[in-house]
Amino acid sequence: MSSAPVSVSALLKSRIRTVRDWPKPGVNFRDATTLFHDPEAFRATIDAFAEDCAKQEIDIIAAVDARGFILGGALAYKLGKPFALVRKKGKLPYKTVSEDYHLEYGTAAVEIHADACKAGDRVLIVDDLIATGGTLLAATKLFRVLHGEVIGVAAVIDLPELGGSKRLRDVGLKVHALCEYSETE
Amino acid sequence: MSSAPVSVSALLKSRIRTVRDWPKPGVNFRDATTLFHDPEAFRATIDAFAEDCAKQEIDIIAAVDARGFILGGALAYKLGKPFALVRKKGKLPYKTVSEDYHLEYGTAAVEIHADACKAGDRVLIVDDLIATGGTLLAATKLFRVLHGEVIGVAAVIDLPELGGSKRLRDVGLKVHALCEYSETE
Repeated sequence: MSSAPVSVSALLKSRIRTVRDWPKPGVNFRDATTLFHDPEAFRATIDAFAEDCAKQEIDIIAAVDARGFILGGALAYKLGKPFALVRKKGKLPYKTVSEDYHLEYGTAAVEIHADACKAGDRVLIVDDLIATGGTLLAATKLFRVLHGEVIGVAAVIDLPELGGSKRLRDVGLKVHALCEYSETE
Repeated sequence: MSSAPVSVSALLKSRIRTVRDWPKPGVNFRDATTLFHDPEAFRATIDAFAEDCAKQEIDIIAAVDARGFILGGALAYKLGKPFALVRKKGKLPYKTVSEDYHLEYGTAAVEIHADACKAGDRVLIVDDLIATGGTLLAATKLFRVLHGEVIGVAAVIDLPELGGSKRLRDVGLKVHALCEYSETE
C-alpha cells in the first residue's frame, strides 16, 4: 500500500493533538481523539482507507480494542464488510484463540473469536497508531491460526523510529499509514 | 425516540449470539460481535440510528469504550458529526472530567476529555447494550458537567428487566433500543 498524498497527511497532522509527557515524562503522545472529533479529518481518514481496500479485495475488517474500533467500525460500515474484534484477553464471550505479546514490562495477550474469519479470508487490521507493532503482530498471528490471509495494516499514524511498521513489513504485511511523526516532533 | 420496526428487531436478534453462563453461571450474555460480523445487520443498525438522529438535531455522537466505539464510529462517519470517547479512567491523555459509578462489587469511573463537547451541544450516547445503565448514566453526567445537552441513548439491545432503560428515561433521556431480551430468553 502506498503513502498518503501530502494533503491528507497534512490535514490529519493538523487535527492530531500532541500531549507532552504522557503517559510518562519524555513521551510525546499522539492523541487521535481530536481527529475523531473533526468530521472532515475523520472522513478523509476512512475514505483513504476505503480507497486502498478497494484495490486489495479485503474480506474482513479487523480492529484492535479500543481506539481501533472507532476506525474499524466506520470502515466496515462504509465497505459493507464483516467486522472482527481483536480484544484484550478475557473480554470475548465465545470460543477464542489467544496470543501473548511482550510489553515494556511483562506480557499481555490478545484474543479473537474462533469464528472471526474463515480459512482464506483476506483480512485488513486497522488501528490508530503503529508504535512497536507488538499488538498488531499478535493480532496477525491470531488470524493466521484461523488460516486467514492477513493482507496488511491500515493506521492513521506511524512512529517509524519505534520500528513497528518495519516489523510488520518483515512478516509480509502491507503497511498503510496516513501520516508519521518523529519522536521529537 | 420510537421502537424499531419489528423487522429490524427480528433481523438483529437473528444475528446476536446468546452465550449461556458467561461471564458467570446463570447469565445469558447477548453477544453483538456476530452482528458486527454481519454486514446486513450492521448496516441496518447504523441506518436505524441515523434515521432517528436526523429528527433530533444531534451535534455530537458519543460512545462508551469499547464495543460502543464500533457503533459510534460508524454512526459519526455516516452523519459527518464529531465523535467523542467515553473511556475508563486513566485512558484519555488530555484534561478530563471524571465520574464514579457503582458496579456489583465496588465502583469504577469513566472520563471524557474536557473538550469533548461545547456548552449547548446536543449529544447522543451510543452503546451496544443497556443493562443496569450505570455506565450510561455516568456518561450522561459527564456531558452535563460540560453543559452539553444529552438528548438520548441509542443501543442495539435493551435488557428491560435490569432497569437501565427506565433509569435513563427517569433522568430525561430518550432511549432508542433496536431490540430487547428477557433474562430467560
